[in-house]
Amino acid sequence: MATTDDDRRPKYQRIADSLREAIQVGRYGPGDRLPGENDLMTTHGVARMTARQALSVLRDEGIAEARKGAGVFVRAFRPLRRRGIDRLARDRWGNGRSIWSAEIENRALEVDRISVSEEAAPDRISAVLDLAVEEMTCVRRRRFVLDGKPVLLATSHLPLSLVAGSAIAQEDTGPGGTYARLAELGYEPVHFREEIRSRMPSKDEAERLAMSAGTPVILVCRTAFTDEGRPVEVNEMTLDAASYVLEYDFDAGPGSARVKD
Amino acid sequence: MATTDDDRRPKYQRIADSLREAIQVGRYGPGDRLPGENDLMTTHGVARMTARQALSVLRDEGIAEARKGAGVFVRAFRPLRRRGIDRLARDRWGNGRSIWSAEIENRALEVDRISVSEEAAPDRISAVLDLAVEEMTCVRRRRFVLDGKPVLLATSHLPLSLVAGSAIAQEDTGPGGTYARLAELGYEPVHFREEIRSRMPSKDEAERLAMSAGTPVILVCRTAFTDEGRPVEVNEMTLDAASYVLEYDFDAGPGSARVKD
Repeated sequence: MATTDDDRRPKYQRIADSLREAIQVGRYGPGDRLPGENDLMTTHGVARMTARQALSVLRDEGIAEARKGAGVFVRAFRPLRRRGIDRLARDRWGNGRSIWSAEIENRALEVDRISVSEEAAPDRISAVLDLAVEEMTCVRRRRFVLDGKPVLLATSHLPLSLVAGSAIAQEDTGPGGTYARLAELGYEPVHFREEIRSRMPSKDEAERLAMSAGTPVILVCRTAFTDEGRPVEVNEMTLDAASYVLEYDFDAGPGSARVKD
Repeated sequence: MATTDDDRRPKYQRIADSLREAIQVGRYGPGDRLPGENDLMTTHGVARMTARQALSVLRDEGIAEARKGAGVFVRAFRPLRRRGIDRLARDRWGNGRSIWSAEIENRALEVDRISVSEEAAPDRISAVLDLAVEEMTCVRRRRFVLDGKPVLLATSHLPLSLVAGSAIAQEDTGPGGTYARLAELGYEPVHFREEIRSRMPSKDEAERLAMSAGTPVILVCRTAFTDEGRPVEVNEMTLDAASYVLEYDFDAGPGSARVKD
């Protein structure tokens, strides 16, 4: 990443490169303030617009974030830890240290924007829940907020034929929530499938999650199955990728040495 | 997303919005060719630069991709499926249909750019592997390629004191690979922790994975533990998010109704 005089890239790119390199080698750490437009103008002898463009490259890459009136800072990655599987005696493994530091798990999240409605299932949901075409579902939407910052959008789809008239069709599902109610109805979820992908957010998602530029969303789709293998819920979650580390702890079965990669 | 005459956003943004909406309602499906610059110039009465900017908005969002000489197309999301946990009788659950379609799992990936070296462990690795400061590790780097497209970069770190002199320190680890060799050495990995996050790629990652603009990477960090809980390998993987769906299937233990969200 050495810059030479005959480097043909635009000046703002070269300034962005040198700042990025300074962050990578640790000259600026997480949360540190980066040189401002005035600093860059002086140091590199460039116009304000060029300095501004250089900083916006780093913001678009998600490496830096602007704070109103305070400047541009190296983004600190201090996310929540979400454990997909919560039953293993993982404390017996290693020293408990993880590759990415994260806030204590299970921090209480505020839930807002709860809505419950009856809707005809879209195709992708019908396929997973094994519903007839246009069969009705109970759809529960809500948003999870941590310290005023929205971090997760969730939309659960349940077959209406299973849950109509139960507390699941109410805003407040009662103690233990949806899964406790499903258990009472004879459909206790005991098998889970979580599918994960990542992409850039839509404008609407970025707004609802109050996301910074240059940050992707993680999509987690969890399907819950009864002991008989009947799918009873599909929960489509959209997570601000800057707010989460997902963790899955599991034991290998016999022949474990075949785990891939 | 209705556009009105007093809409103050730049014209290219409004054109991008209308194309995005057309994609969202399915007027253009995955793999379809979008109107080209000439079409947009005629339809919207704009200059070529404006039409070009509109299309580049969709490319930056990862919704569309340019193919050289052929135009701009709606991106098809047809990734590989990577199963983190490969031991459950998941075929008993539901009808096997998934929320996101994906290529058959376990497709043979080509491995290239293999390198093996001895390196002092960086702090994050020392912490997880419980090593002394600057203790040496065996580092195995490689890249996985599907049909000529690189999809995954992997770097495994193992304590050198455990693996020195074994086939793990060779390019070719032999049948069964690293885990089989670890088992022979008395360190069979039986517990696994996978941590997942997502961010935009660095320039270097984007190049090595030949990624399109507007696509994040998924980072998977897998730690392997012996039966006694000793960490024996940390594998840092960087995945092109457009190429993968991750899947985790698991059973709930007693008290399963407490699964979160």
